[in-house]
Amino acid sequence: MAVSNRINPVSKLNRDTGFSDTGNIHGGRFINRDGTFNLRKVGWPFWRRYSIYYRMISIPLWQFIAIIFIFYLCINLLFTLIYISVGVDELTGMISRSGWKMFKEIYFFSTQTFTTVGYGRINPVGDAAGLTASIESMTGLLSFAIATGLNYGRFSRPRAHLAFSDNAVIAPYRGKTALMFRFVCYKEQHALTDVTVQVNLAMLIEENGHANYKYYELPLERTKIESLPMNWTVVHPIDEQSPLAGFTIEDLKAADVELYVLVRGFNDVYSNTVLQRTSYTYDEIKLNRRFIHMYKETENGTILELHKLNKFVKQE
Amino acid sequence: MAVSNRINPVSKLNRDTGFSDTGNIHGGRFINRDGTFNLRKVGWPFWRRYSIYYRMISIPLWQFIAIIFIFYLCINLLFTLIYISVGVDELTGMISRSGWKMFKEIYFFSTQTFTTVGYGRINPVGDAAGLTASIESMTGLLSFAIATGLNYGRFSRPRAHLAFSDNAVIAPYRGKTALMFRFVCYKEQHALTDVTVQVNLAMLIEENGHANYKYYELPLERTKIESLPMNWTVVHPIDEQSPLAGFTIEDLKAADVELYVLVRGFNDVYSNTVLQRTSYTYDEIKLNRRFIHMYKETENGTILELHKLNKFVKQE
Amino acid sequence: MAVSNRINPVSKLNRDTGFSDTGNIHGGRFINRDGTFNLRKVGWPFWRRYSIYYRMISIPLWQFIAIIFIFYLCINLLFTLIYISVGVDELTGMISRSGWKMFKEIYFFSTQTFTTVGYGRINPVGDAAGLTASIESMTGLLSFAIATGLNYGRFSRPRAHLAFSDNAVIAPYRGKTALMFRFVCYKEQHALTDVTVQVNLAMLIEENGHANYKYYELPLERTKIESLPMNWTVVHPIDEQSPLAGFTIEDLKAADVELYVLVRGFNDVYSNTVLQRTSYTYDEIKLNRRFIHMYKETENGTILELHKLNKFVKQE
Amino acid sequence: MAVSNRINPVSKLNRDTGFSDTGNIHGGRFINRDGTFNLRKVGWPFWRRYSIYYRMISIPLWQFIAIIFIFYLCINLLFTLIYISVGVDELTGMISRSGWKMFKEIYFFSTQTFTTVGYGRINPVGDAAGLTASIESMTGLLSFAIATGLNYGRFSRPRAHLAFSDNAVIAPYRGKTALMFRFVCYKEQHALTDVTVQVNLAMLIEENGHANYKYYELPLERTKIESLPMNWTVVHPIDEQSPLAGFTIEDLKAADVELYVLVRGFNDVYSNTVLQRTSYTYDEIKLNRRFIHMYKETENGTILELHKLNKFVKQE
Repeated sequence: MAVSNRINPVSKLNRDTGFSDTGNIHGGRFINRDGTFNLRKVGWPFWRRYSIYYRMISIPLWQFIAIIFIFYLCINLLFTLIYISVGVDELTGMISRSGWKMFKEIYFFSTQTFTTVGYGRINPVGDAAGLTASIESMTGLLSFAIATGLNYGRFSRPRAHLAFSDNAVIAPYRGKTALMFRFVCYKEQHALTDVTVQVNLAMLIEENGHANYKYYELPLERTKIESLPMNWTVVHPIDEQSPLAGFTIEDLKAADVELYVLVRGFNDVYSNTVLQRTSYTYDEIKLNRRFIHMYKETENGTILELHKLNKFVKQE
Repeated sequence: MAVSNRINPVSKLNRDTGFSDTGNIHGGRFINRDGTFNLRKVGWPFWRRYSIYYRMISIPLWQFIAIIFIFYLCINLLFTLIYISVGVDELTGMISRSGWKMFKEIYFFSTQTFTTVGYGRINPVGDAAGLTASIESMTGLLSFAIATGLNYGRFSRPRAHLAFSDNAVIAPYRGKTALMFRFVCYKEQHALTDVTVQVNLAMLIEENGHANYKYYELPLERTKIESLPMNWTVVHPIDEQSPLAGFTIEDLKAADVELYVLVRGFNDVYSNTVLQRTSYTYDEIKLNRRFIHMYKETENGTILELHKLNKFVKQE
Repeated sequence: MAVSNRINPVSKLNRDTGFSDTGNIHGGRFINRDGTFNLRKVGWPFWRRYSIYYRMISIPLWQFIAIIFIFYLCINLLFTLIYISVGVDELTGMISRSGWKMFKEIYFFSTQTFTTVGYGRINPVGDAAGLTASIESMTGLLSFAIATGLNYGRFSRPRAHLAFSDNAVIAPYRGKTALMFRFVCYKEQHALTDVTVQVNLAMLIEENGHANYKYYELPLERTKIESLPMNWTVVHPIDEQSPLAGFTIEDLKAADVELYVLVRGFNDVYSNTVLQRTSYTYDEIKLNRRFIHMYKETENGTILELHKLNKFVKQE
Repeated sequence: MAVSNRINPVSKLNRDTGFSDTGNIHGGRFINRDGTFNLRKVGWPFWRRYSIYYRMISIPLWQFIAIIFIFYLCINLLFTLIYISVGVDELTGMISRSGWKMFKEIYFFSTQTFTTVGYGRINPVGDAAGLTASIESMTGLLSFAIATGLNYGRFSRPRAHLAFSDNAVIAPYRGKTALMFRFVCYKEQHALTDVTVQVNLAMLIEENGHANYKYYELPLERTKIESLPMNWTVVHPIDEQSPLAGFTIEDLKAADVELYVLVRGFNDVYSNTVLQRTSYTYDEIKLNRRFIHMYKETENGTILELHKLNKFVKQE
C-alpha cells in the first residue's frame, strides 16, 4: 500500500481519541460499519472476557428463540437420561416400560416437570426420581427467570435506532466543496432530542520515514440539533482548514482514510442517553455525488422516505 | 392560506431545531398536542420501523389487558386445532369424544397446559399430543415472560407526568404584554427537580416570493426552576425583541404560528431525566385572557386544584 | 403568629425555587422531613393523580407482603363464589358437596388454580367451571407477573440512602458563627460520588403591610465533595452576607424559617444519579450545640458510628 | 511507623475528597483494590445498614446459585415439618404412612407444591394441609418472582468491566520521571466512551507535631479520552509541581502514600454512566519499571493481550 505524506499543517490534531498511532497498520478498519471496534481481546479465559448477557440481548430475535428451544430440547434430554439411569420403575403411571416408546414417554414427562405443568399421570414414587423431579422443576423455573430477564433486557435496552447512509459523498455545497453523509432514526415512534455528532478522521501519514496514524476531529457545519424528527445530513466543509484539503480519491486511498462517526442523543422512549457509532473508509466515500431529498410534503403531512436514505445523484 | 411576510429583524433565528424550512407547508402541525411528531415514515418494512415494545408499554391499560386476553384466546384456539388434527385419541381422560363438546374440552385442556396448571385428568398419551403439549407449555411460559417484561416496562418507564393548559394566552402582564401557558405535574407523589423549559416558534414567512418556515427560540421570563411542586406559568414577554411583536390574531394565523414546547426535569421517583413535549398552534392561542390561580392556602396546607389548569378569565 | 420584618439587603434572593410567595402562609412546612412536598393535589380523579406503582415500591416491606396476601385471599374468595354460582357439580373429584366444607374445598381448589399448582384431584368438567378455571389461571400468572415487576421495582429503585441529623445547630465555628447539620449514607456497601448539597432558606417577611415568603440560597463552606464514605457536616457561616445575620431564636420563629436541603450524588451501586431532600423548620434548629465526632480510628480501620448522627453537646 | 514531613509547598491541596484528615491513621488503606471503601458502619441494626439486594447481585454466580438451592432445601424442609405436624392423614395418595420414607414422600410433595408442578397423586384433603399448600404455592411463586428480579439485577447492573494493573510504576518517561499505571476494559464487546480518570494522592504528613493526612489531585498527562477500545496508560509526570517530587521509596513508605483512582465513562452496552475505583498503596508502586506493549498489529487486525496487563520490564 502506498503511504501518503500529505499533511495539512493548519489542521489541529486530536490526541484524545484513545486509538494508538500504529493501529490497524496492516489494513482493516478501526470501526466496523455496525459501530463495533475492529479489535480482538485474547489472553484471558472466554468466560471472563465475553459477555453472554450482552450477546443474548443483541442477537436477532430468531436466534434468541432458537437458542431457547435448543436449550429446552437438550436440558430435557439430560433429565430424561437421568430418569432412565435411576430406574424407570421409580416412575408410576407409565404406559410403556421399555425401548423407544418409553424414552419418549419419559421425555414428555420431563418437559411436564420442567415447565411445571405436571399433569401427574406419570409421577415419581421413588427417592431418586423424586429428587430428580424436584431439581428439574426448580431448574425449569430458574431457567424461565433467566429467560424473563433476557427478554426484558432485549426489549428495554436503550438504543438510538439510527440508520446511516452506506456512503459518504464529496460534492459542491454552497459554493464550496463538502464531505457529507446522513442518517435517520428509522423507528416510527422514536425521535431523539439534543443530538450531537462528532466525526474523527484517521489518516496514515509517513513522516521521517515512519508511517503513523494521525487523528483529526473534522469541523462540521452543525454539530448539534435540538430534535431529530427527520434525517440529518452532516456536512464537513473541505476548506483550507480541513485535513482533507486538496485530496484526490487516490490521496484518500494512499492515506487509508477512515471517518469515525459518533452520534449521541436523548431518546425519550427509553428516557436515556443513547449513542451510536459507524465509520466510512476511503472506498465508501463517493466523489461528486449529491443526496436527493428523502422527505416530501403532502396534503396529509410530511412523509419521510427511509428507502431513499442512500440515494444520490451525480453532481459535478 | 394567506402567508405572512411580517418579520422582526431583531429576533434571532434558531437554526438548530432539526426541522426543515419547508416542513408541513400544506398545513398540519409540526408537533401533536401529546408531544409526538406529526410525521410518517415509509419505505421500510413495518417490523423494522415500528417499535412494538414501545407500543405495548404506551397504550392504555385496558387495551393492554384486552390484547393479552385476545392473544390468550387465539393461541389456545390454535393449539386446540393442533390437538384435534393430530388426533383426539392421543388424549386420555376425556369425557366427550366428538363434536362441539369435545372441542370445548380440548380447548380447556389447552388453557390448562398453556398456563401450566395441568390438572392432569386429561393428559397426552401419544407422541404428537405429547410433543404439542410440551411446546405449548413452553410457549405459555415464554408468553408470560414477555408479559412480565412488558408489564414492568409499563410501570417503570420514566415519564414527566405533566399536564399542559389546553390554550396559551396573550394578555397584559406586569405593564407589558406576554404570551403565557402553564403546566403542572399531576401525580400526587411526583415532583420534578431542575425543570427547564424551552419554547420554539415556527412561522411561515414569505421572502422573495418563497414561503419558508422560520424558527425562533422565544426568550422567557424564567427558563429554569429548582423544583416543581406546584404549577408553572411560562411567560414570554412580547417586547420589541420578540418575533411576535405587534402581531394580531390574523397575523398569527397568516404566519401559521406554532409554539413547540419542551420541558425537561429530573423525576426522583424514577431517578431519571424526563422530557415532555407539546405544541400550541395559532388557533389554540387566546387573546386577552388571564389564568386564574390554581392553588389555595388553607389551614391544612396548600392545595393544588388540577381542574383549574385551563381556567382563565377575560382581561383587556 | 408574629411576622418578621427583618431583612438583610445584602443577601441575594433566589427567585427560581418553584415555590410561591404565599405558600403555606397558614403554617405547616414546605417540605416534610422525609423529603416529600407538603402539598395536596385535588380536582382530578384518584387514578389519574395517584401513582399506585410508586406507592407499591415505596411502602415498607411488611405492608407490601400484607397487600399481596390480602389480594391472594380476596381474589380466591371471588373465584370461589364464581365456582359455586356456576354449580358445584361442574367440578369433579370433590369429597364434600355442600356447606362450609364444600366452600373450603372449592377455595383450596381455587388457590391451586390461581397458583397453577393444579393437583388435579378436583378439576372442572363443565363449561362454566372450565372457563372460570382458564381465566383464573391466567389471572394468577398475570398477577405474579405484576408482583415480579413490583418486586424488582422495589429492589432496584435508585436511592441515596441518606440519613440526616434530626436537628440543625447554630454554634461558634472557626471564629465565626455557623449553622450546621450533617448526614451520612447509612448503607454499608453504598458510597456516593460527586455529592453536592444545596440549602434554600424560606422566610416569611412583612413588607409594606404584606406578608410574603422570600427565598435565599444559603452560601456554604463547601457545596461538593468527591465521595461520601463518611458523614458530611454542611456548614453555612452566618456572616454579614447571610440572611440569618443577627437572628435570635425568636427571630427564626417570627420569620417561620425553614431550610430546605437537597443532596445529589452518583450512587455506583445503582450507577445512577440519586437525590434526597429534607427540611429543618425553626423549631428543629438548636442554638449553641456542637455535633460530636461520629467516627473513630481503630487498629482495625475506621468505624463510622451511625447512632451518633444526632449527638451534640452544648457549646457557648 | 516513621512519619514523613516532606511537603511540596507548590502542590495544591484537594480539600474536597470527602476523606477526613485523621483517616486510617493506624494503618490500612483508604480504598481496597476492588474499589470499596475500607470502612465499617456500626450502631444501627443490620437490616437497616446492609443492602441484601446489592449483596445478592454482586456475589459470584456459584454463590448465588448455592444460596438459591440452600433456600429451596430449607423452605421445603420447613413446609414438610408443617405438613407432618398438621397430620399426614390430611394428605391423600401417599404410599408410606410413617417413618423416614413418609418424610421423604412429603418432602417431595412439598417441592411439587413449591414449584407449582403439582403432579397431584399426593394432594391435600384436610383443611390444614389445604391451607398450608395454598400458602406454600404462593410463597413459591413469590420466591421465583424475587429470583427473577435478582437475576435480572445481576445481568443488567451497569459496570465498567475494567481491569487495572496490579502495580503502579515510576520510571523515566519522555525525558522526565513519571508515575504510571494502566487499565483495560476486558469485556470483548464493551468499549467505554468519554472516559475520564482522576487520581488523588493521600499522604500522612507531620506538621507542628501533628500527623495528618493531606490530599492532592495528581496532574495527569491526559485526563480524558474519547473511547477506550484498547488499554490506557495513565501518566503523572513527577515534575517540580508534583507532591511526589524527589521522593524515594522510603519517603513513599514514611508518608503512607496511597493513590486512589476513579475512572468514569459511558458504557454503551448498558447505555449508562459507569464508574470504577481502585487504589495503589506505596508497596504496590514499583520503581524503575516500564510496562511492555499489550497489543499487537497482525494481518488479521489488532489484538489486545489481556494477560500482559501487569507485565513490565526493568528500566533505569
